[in-house]
Amino acid sequence: MNSYSNFKSIKGSVNAPNGFLSAATHCGIRPEGLGKGAAKKNDIALIVSETPATVAGMFTTNQVCAAPVKLSEPRASKDVAQAIVVNSGNANACTGDRGMKDAQAMTKQVGKSLNIPDEDVLVCSTGRIGMVLPMAKVKAGISECVGSLNATAKSANETAVAIMTSDKTAKEVAVEFELGGKTVRIGGITKGAGMIEPGMSPNGQRPASISLHATMLCFITSDAAIAPKPLKAALEEAVAQSFNRITVDGDMSTNDSVIALANGLAGNRKITGSRSADAQTFQAALNHVCLELAKMMVRDGEGASRFITIRLNGAKTVKDADTAARTVANSQLVRTSWCGGDPNWGRILDALGYSDAKVVEEKVDFGYSAPGDKRVKYSLKRGKPTKTTLAELGKIAKLKEFELHINLNLGKGSALIYSADLTEEYVTFNRGE
Amino acid sequence: MNSYSNFKSIKGSVNAPNGFLSAATHCGIRPEGLGKGAAKKNDIALIVSETPATVAGMFTTNQVCAAPVKLSEPRASKDVAQAIVVNSGNANACTGDRGMKDAQAMTKQVGKSLNIPDEDVLVCSTGRIGMVLPMAKVKAGISECVGSLNATAKSANETAVAIMTSDKTAKEVAVEFELGGKTVRIGGITKGAGMIEPGMSPNGQRPASISLHATMLCFITSDAAIAPKPLKAALEEAVAQSFNRITVDGDMSTNDSVIALANGLAGNRKITGSRSADAQTFQAALNHVCLELAKMMVRDGEGASRFITIRLNGAKTVKDADTAARTVANSQLVRTSWCGGDPNWGRILDALGYSDAKVVEEKVDFGYSAPGDKRVKYSLKRGKPTKTTLAELGKIAKLKEFELHINLNLGKGSALIYSADLTEEYVTFNRGE
Repeated sequence: MNSYSNFKSIKGSVNAPNGFLSAATHCGIRPEGLGKGAAKKNDIALIVSETPATVAGMFTTNQVCAAPVKLSEPRASKDVAQAIVVNSGNANACTGDRGMKDAQAMTKQVGKSLNIPDEDVLVCSTGRIGMVLPMAKVKAGISECVGSLNATAKSANETAVAIMTSDKTAKEVAVEFELGGKTVRIGGITKGAGMIEPGMSPNGQRPASISLHATMLCFITSDAAIAPKPLKAALEEAVAQSFNRITVDGDMSTNDSVIALANGLAGNRKITGSRSADAQTFQAALNHVCLELAKMMVRDGEGASRFITIRLNGAKTVKDADTAARTVANSQLVRTSWCGGDPNWGRILDALGYSDAKVVEEKVDFGYSAPGDKRVKYSLKRGKPTKTTLAELGKIAKLKEFELHINLNLGKGSALIYSADLTEEYVTFNRGE
Repeated sequence: MNSYSNFKSIKGSVNAPNGFLSAATHCGIRPEGLGKGAAKKNDIALIVSETPATVAGMFTTNQVCAAPVKLSEPRASKDVAQAIVVNSGNANACTGDRGMKDAQAMTKQVGKSLNIPDEDVLVCSTGRIGMVLPMAKVKAGISECVGSLNATAKSANETAVAIMTSDKTAKEVAVEFELGGKTVRIGGITKGAGMIEPGMSPNGQRPASISLHATMLCFITSDAAIAPKPLKAALEEAVAQSFNRITVDGDMSTNDSVIALANGLAGNRKITGSRSADAQTFQAALNHVCLELAKMMVRDGEGASRFITIRLNGAKTVKDADTAARTVANSQLVRTSWCGGDPNWGRILDALGYSDAKVVEEKVDFGYSAPGDKRVKYSLKRGKPTKTTLAELGKIAKLKEFELHINLNLGKGSALIYSADLTEEYVTFNRGE
């Protein structure tokens, strides 16, 4: 709570920081016959910094990754970039050489139009896997975006809409804070509702604490002056405690990408390391932006009707904590019981037991609480059922949001996972025709 | 096909072999208010051999396992047993010391009534986790079963019904074959429709080829004369190629158990090793019985509308093959697309990519076929989409049963998994109230 107190929420998301422009339009990418009522939704967008910006990126660790990821990952590992072009309606994944050429063509067109190097343009795609992009439409869409770039909050919102696929709502956040007397801003937009269990890293190496497995895309802009190394470190930390802690359906996408651009136009004294007070203030603000966006994603999860926070403590190792919490969060039977508001803790114990984490039934504590409520109702203490009735537990399990408290009592490993329930609506949405 | 040609299917399942009796009744175990229309279904049963029988057992490798598993596993590792008592409606799992005492009391009552040692009685339970058994009802039920033991096919069917929980159909198989001029029989019953991804072993050690994770119960009877060691080896092999190859929802239960009893009353020359022609004939027959029962379970999977066989070849290792095939089989997005008959192979590639198995997109072949049809329609060859249209693929993906052919082209590891789709009905069934 304290760490939030220095931020002020502001409007405008990616256009809130000084020197950022965006534009979005509908160019007709989604293949005909796919999707219901996708109609004329924006499907292509452009985010541009007026000046070259420090860049950082985190990308899916799926071994099958999309052409735009292959192209953008090395560009995000450089020091500087200036623009991001993004489409929805087609993932440009499993599209072979043609896919790579198309991704390159998108960045070339943007680079040429804006008179900046190709290499300073990153590209992202989201949508159906395994279909080639309709490049004539994409080209026309990019031209339209280039011609309509502007810094309004309306345009930022249209950009947030352009990246939506199965999302019901556009997801935008921006904050303002002080660094050495200068006002600095961070804005962000994200998308993602299904194929969500990100496990992103800056270099394709799956983070050690991540046992597995969205398409999720997130674009963050800031007018902070910050050097590449501390920005990359800050983004890695912010993603580790936000997007990499959520799961909707346990399916990690081929396209997950988070890209941050910081152009320095706020005029603060440049952050050159990660330890200064300014670096820590920036980190706290970035963490806040990423966590808010990540939670929006879970709440808007395909078909999701409840938001569940899993607090797992006492695992033998951090890896074990993560594995155990994710196994619970991704169990189809557990997620289905959440949907019904059924405090079926037996299914949770079952999932803990078959997880690859060390679990000793006789040591497990398990309980429910309302969000942030310190009074946990335990159904199990040291492996033994308590006298708390199912009716009492059911009162919590029927809330729209609740927390699970699991203590394995085997060590000091802990993990926090944000998850959603599995509903009939999820199946109906994803079953296709 | 050849291996089946020597078997004759017969009626009577567990009562088909000489010297086996069974009985079942309704005693009212299921807690009130749980389950829909469970009403007066049989919920307790007894299977008995007239003479001491060679025993073998395979049990869940879930670290959280039920009291009956804890009690029966060591008893199945002995040479001899004579009876199995089983209830549905309550798993007697996560029930602490009380659960263990209740399981013991069940076997004591059976032992005393039949005048055989407790240790020769095994016990299994299936149903909700975390509730204690209503022992007065259980006791009355066991008494009634003891008094009505008989060798009819009707009684075997009533026993198959007694072990059902969410199953829609009773699952029974029996075969007859010759061993050295003597007629030998193997019969079996099984249950299981949800919480199904068994990973069973005889000793709690997860099999090396199993990367993870029903309640499923299976009881097999035979009048073959076979020594303990070859029976245990034969059951391990039969389970490895049947129950341990299926998944409905990826949730491994606390209670999975397969128990085999062979009483020797067929009078064949005793099988004392695993290499003889007789041992191999017995193995083939046991494999057939287990695989038929396992497939029945997948076809009757909770809410399942399609049966999918995944044939994965070319993995770097057998473990990788198993991991990759199970990751596909358990992906919520893949299973949902199966439900819709949508040949959404991009989701399958996505799941392969995030699996813990080594996968190189540019090497993957992927196709669909009708069951047993050698003409595979490939959507992807060496990572490149073929010209086969979605409409052509959709014709296969809309069949009630079809096969997926995945070749990773990285090595010689292969795996076969039997799976079902994820439907709205599954969610509705499992969400509780």
